[in-house]
Amino acid sequence: MKKTLLTLALSLASLAQADEGMWQPHQLPELEAVLKAKGLQIEAASIAQLTAFPMNAVISLGGCTASFVSPQGLVVTNHHCAYGSIQHNSTADNNLLANGFLATSMDKELPAAPGAKVFVTQEVSNVTPAINQELSPQLKGKARFDKIDELRKSLVADCETPGYRCDVYSFHGGLEYYLIKQMEIRDVRLVHAPASGVGKFGGDIDNWMWPRHTGDYSFYRAYVGKDGQPADFSADNVPFTPPSYLKVSAKGVAENDFVMVIGYPGRTNRYNSAADVRNQFTQVLPQSKAYREQAMAVIKQHAPEGSEARIKYESILAGLANYAKNFEGMIQSYQSGGTQQRKDEFEKVLNRWIKSSPARQAKYAPAVRQLNQLVAQQAETQQRDLVLNYFGYAQLFSTAEKLYRLAQEQQKPDAERETGYQQRDLERFSASMKRLSRSFDVTVEQELALHFLKQYASLPKTQHLAAFDSYFALDGAFDEAAVTEKLAGIYQNTKLTDEAERLTWMGKSVEEFKASTDPLIQFAVALYDSRMTLEQEQKEQAGLMAVARPLVMEAVIAFNKSLGKPVYADANSTLRVTYGSVQGYSPKDAVTYQPFTTTAGILQKATGVEPFDAPKAQLEAIKEGDFGIYKNAAGQLPVNFLSTVDTTGGNSGSPTLNGKAELVGLLFDGVIEGIIANWDYDPATNRSIHVDSRYMLWQMENVDGASNLLKEMSIVTE
Amino acid sequence: MKKTLLTLALSLASLAQADEGMWQPHQLPELEAVLKAKGLQIEAASIAQLTAFPMNAVISLGGCTASFVSPQGLVVTNHHCAYGSIQHNSTADNNLLANGFLATSMDKELPAAPGAKVFVTQEVSNVTPAINQELSPQLKGKARFDKIDELRKSLVADCETPGYRCDVYSFHGGLEYYLIKQMEIRDVRLVHAPASGVGKFGGDIDNWMWPRHTGDYSFYRAYVGKDGQPADFSADNVPFTPPSYLKVSAKGVAENDFVMVIGYPGRTNRYNSAADVRNQFTQVLPQSKAYREQAMAVIKQHAPEGSEARIKYESILAGLANYAKNFEGMIQSYQSGGTQQRKDEFEKVLNRWIKSSPARQAKYAPAVRQLNQLVAQQAETQQRDLVLNYFGYAQLFSTAEKLYRLAQEQQKPDAERETGYQQRDLERFSASMKRLSRSFDVTVEQELALHFLKQYASLPKTQHLAAFDSYFALDGAFDEAAVTEKLAGIYQNTKLTDEAERLTWMGKSVEEFKASTDPLIQFAVALYDSRMTLEQEQKEQAGLMAVARPLVMEAVIAFNKSLGKPVYADANSTLRVTYGSVQGYSPKDAVTYQPFTTTAGILQKATGVEPFDAPKAQLEAIKEGDFGIYKNAAGQLPVNFLSTVDTTGGNSGSPTLNGKAELVGLLFDGVIEGIIANWDYDPATNRSIHVDSRYMLWQMENVDGASNLLKEMSIVTE
Repeated sequence: MKKTLLTLALSLASLAQADEGMWQPHQLPELEAVLKAKGLQIEAASIAQLTAFPMNAVISLGGCTASFVSPQGLVVTNHHCAYGSIQHNSTADNNLLANGFLATSMDKELPAAPGAKVFVTQEVSNVTPAINQELSPQLKGKARFDKIDELRKSLVADCETPGYRCDVYSFHGGLEYYLIKQMEIRDVRLVHAPASGVGKFGGDIDNWMWPRHTGDYSFYRAYVGKDGQPADFSADNVPFTPPSYLKVSAKGVAENDFVMVIGYPGRTNRYNSAADVRNQFTQVLPQSKAYREQAMAVIKQHAPEGSEARIKYESILAGLANYAKNFEGMIQSYQSGGTQQRKDEFEKVLNRWIKSSPARQAKYAPAVRQLNQLVAQQAETQQRDLVLNYFGYAQLFSTAEKLYRLAQEQQKPDAERETGYQQRDLERFSASMKRLSRSFDVTVEQELALHFLKQYASLPKTQHLAAFDSYFALDGAFDEAAVTEKLAGIYQNTKLTDEAERLTWMGKSVEEFKASTDPLIQFAVALYDSRMTLEQEQKEQAGLMAVARPLVMEAVIAFNKSLGKPVYADANSTLRVTYGSVQGYSPKDAVTYQPFTTTAGILQKATGVEPFDAPKAQLEAIKEGDFGIYKNAAGQLPVNFLSTVDTTGGNSGSPTLNGKAELVGLLFDGVIEGIIANWDYDPATNRSIHVDSRYMLWQMENVDGASNLLKEMSIVTE
Repeated sequence: MKKTLLTLALSLASLAQADEGMWQPHQLPELEAVLKAKGLQIEAASIAQLTAFPMNAVISLGGCTASFVSPQGLVVTNHHCAYGSIQHNSTADNNLLANGFLATSMDKELPAAPGAKVFVTQEVSNVTPAINQELSPQLKGKARFDKIDELRKSLVADCETPGYRCDVYSFHGGLEYYLIKQMEIRDVRLVHAPASGVGKFGGDIDNWMWPRHTGDYSFYRAYVGKDGQPADFSADNVPFTPPSYLKVSAKGVAENDFVMVIGYPGRTNRYNSAADVRNQFTQVLPQSKAYREQAMAVIKQHAPEGSEARIKYESILAGLANYAKNFEGMIQSYQSGGTQQRKDEFEKVLNRWIKSSPARQAKYAPAVRQLNQLVAQQAETQQRDLVLNYFGYAQLFSTAEKLYRLAQEQQKPDAERETGYQQRDLERFSASMKRLSRSFDVTVEQELALHFLKQYASLPKTQHLAAFDSYFALDGAFDEAAVTEKLAGIYQNTKLTDEAERLTWMGKSVEEFKASTDPLIQFAVALYDSRMTLEQEQKEQAGLMAVARPLVMEAVIAFNKSLGKPVYADANSTLRVTYGSVQGYSPKDAVTYQPFTTTAGILQKATGVEPFDAPKAQLEAIKEGDFGIYKNAAGQLPVNFLSTVDTTGGNSGSPTLNGKAELVGLLFDGVIEGIIANWDYDPATNRSIHVDSRYMLWQMENVDGASNLLKEMSIVTE
């Protein structure tokens, strides 16, 4: 028995790949030997210090990552991360998206889109003891959930000062909590962006694809008040002096070279249970993909190409398609790869390890059991949860519910209100009420509602929600004509289609909602109690989860430690470091993807038509072939490259560094064959895509004439 | 000047690739050194003898190539070459296409499709002197064309004996003529074919594509009378004893190994002038592709999916799509590759070489000039010729013309009739009149005619044909309503839609045609004189070409000889040898295609749905992974492989041999990136696709249980 366990453990250890892992900076010294062997030339300890180079040169834009590349607050990130700001400054006459933009001096820099921020991490402190000491073992379920929520809010309130934002992040499902303080710079300006034919070359067609030829870079500058503190936009503001900045390499990397990426990955599910993974990939994702495709078909049918309605739904369609493609890729990887087998095997080995010691058995086995129960419990109503989620694409229904929830929350003191309904959220709330006007069409709403009601009606009765059935009279067999008529009546009689009307309801009382004859307001009132019951149940489950999951993760960590392996936490939008090497891969039998693309591929793809509309000036410069100091050993100019680093959404714009911590590229995507990475890192197919610093510098120098920025940056040529 | 010429010549020589060339067997001794260096282990001289092994094991099926693989006349060729015979023997109850077929003993073998033949080359003789001595310099234009035609017919007539077919083939545009005698075996039987899910795996989707996983092989057996001579099918017939047969390798090849392919390539245009190439790729092919796509759109619109009419047009649609894809590939290769530059450069160097000697200048320069003039002359009316050609997709119009031509030709003695209208052609002629019933629909015909009449009307008046304009009243601006009505009238009143009616017209006189009131017969009569005038002009041009082109080719050959390079002739359906090595390629920036696919790729592609409907038994056997003696060094089973050999249509089914002349595969396709090869061999992308003998043998042994055939063949394991 023991021998079998050892054998399994060893095979598991050999399976584990050194390049997997989104490491918290403080873990890096543990990895020093591996990092040095791989090619890190600076001290691992130096990457562990958030307040020292290079970590303090890496910043968050909220959803994207960026880095400082000059002592005057010059920021480099992805083109797609600055897209909103380029669009915001574009007009029909002066289309910056199409033509690109270069501020040749600071006074010509343009304000970024409203809400654009630069977050500079100041402090990270482990607040696990502070939270745990307040959590008595008696606190269970919802009570525990609420207590944790209260403690987190209080830590945040104590930490925040003007111009600084604080957040408590949970790691390993609540095993650890860190309080992170960031400087929130709110005067951000657009400095330079290449034309879309460079920055978005390949567009949605090439999205998640290799070979790739996208110049996905843009430049911002962070400004602060004369006192050096965050300030609203003002002509008097001065460029922010960052604590450090990255040097940019004109030499680039070669195949197999060490690279590391520092950034803010959003979310992964690497430690979810085998049963959860099976459920997600065989039930949730295929069903979600089907619903997305159905929603797209309904929208396309009732908002035909060229119609007014279609314009309103373009962005929604793009979002539906984007994740339908994502889910398809994930399902394919799951079906053809070994994810489930790896998960099953890991769980088997972990459980044997737990069972082989009475102490461990007593401590962890009940938690494992409870976690599995909770996951199974959530799965019970997932069919309903999914279909109601997609029913939400009929946006006026959810809008009515949000408005009524606001009336309910406003009855409480501000501090007790649900997140999203507090005083500080109201500006965002009313903005969303306004934004809705540009993204719905009554006919499409009705058809979407009808479609998903039909799907809902076909679910087993045990999955139904009584209030929902009652409102739509869905008790017997589905009567399509009756439901169609009901929906037509709702949309004829509601006034929520009107923007002013929606804003008016933001100020009304619960009683006014209850007295309303607007059919959508009545829907919100009718559903409210059921929704609250569901929310209480979810909080109850979350509270139970808050006990079980940390214990299971403790077991996972201890087990790995017994094998000599450090454990990284799932991504949670906090600063992480990942390392690996420049490497291609094989997407399918007999096909090898090389790790670098070159400008030759731009010529091959260029059609003159979006998204392959490389600018003429660029094409001519490529044909001339004068790549100067930026050319590789074969005399070509690399455009994008692949590496084995472990990244996910939120890492976009992250600096890619060589062993000396010089910027050699910007991470901007992953490949579709490795898209399952949010659940399982497969060393054979997990590849991140980077724009090569040589391509960026060459394009800036030879095509876009951005000599002022090249002069401002520190460019390393050796 | 001289130095420049030398430099150019040298750069040209270094450009030339040893693997290019479809060599006539008698040329091989010249190539001995190269062949030996590449890996040929037998004597080059032995491949030069058509009556010795291995050449006499290679046979033609007419349009495809095949080879003998047992002393009992067992023949291996491609699945797609035996497709008609498999289909012919399939019924709804016993679908051999879907299920595959194996005759476990000779008495269970099935007759091949009517018309299936095996041609065994017996003799090849150079008849150039015999023809040239009859061609006086006075003979020019059409007179020369007719004289050559007469001499060829007379040589064929003298050579043919019962059971043997003779043909005179022209090489290098008439510089050389060879008389070839072949035994014509007409009792051919189907022995074995895998299921379509193996033999046609990937279907049209994978056509011309790599990576490929097609088991494109099937087996026939040749039968003769007891006297060993060709005979009609009879139970008394006996298996043909071939003069030799190929051994089949169970060991296969590896990357970079030498391979050669023996077969009957159909047609190439490698020596066409630079101007001709420019015209073809910038005018003819793009316009043809557009017409094909237009014809497809018209057919799809008026014969919607699922309609009776659609069934009639499926095969026509497939043909239109197939070459639209082919042309698209050729155009892309032309645009992205260096074909035109190579052609221009070669012509420049050749012309300098001609000019640099007064004797050469006197002999060749006028021919070069004349050839260019003739090509330019043909291009003058190509817009009209193209559109009339596609107008022919309204098949009843061309049917009427063929019937009237037959009446005209039947006024002459049989020997003087045009090829296609002689007594021996009549069976085929009436078969085509019958076949038409299953492939046209009146509405679609009318719409196709209308569409191409509209295209024709938009051509400059200089391109118009008076008789055509007059029949359709196309003198003024195009009056769509009037032409639509005219076409409706034609199809309402013609009786040629009726099969019996068409056959009746095969026996009618010119006078009866002239007296007919059938609008399509009237069309044929009205057009006849113009058509004949055009034909005379074409023959006149061909006669002039018959002087100019051989002289130009003589210059090309002499010039190459001066560089020490032998010259191969364009493909002309005669037996050729090509050699090269097993090699992958790069289809585009950052992508490498490996030279072998494996069964892993079948599992990746298999969907259970045609054309990816790999049989369950095969999938299970692959998953089991017992590849026995057939596995490669990595333990995998190779399925298809790529090589640099130089092949084209007609080579399908050709044996691929290793250096010991053992069969290691069957050629069955080329890759789309190299599809321009009919005009220009590009060593970077010219790749042929072969089915690996190991895959064939493994499938036969482990899935299809064809042990009787494995026993019959000589299988080499070392």
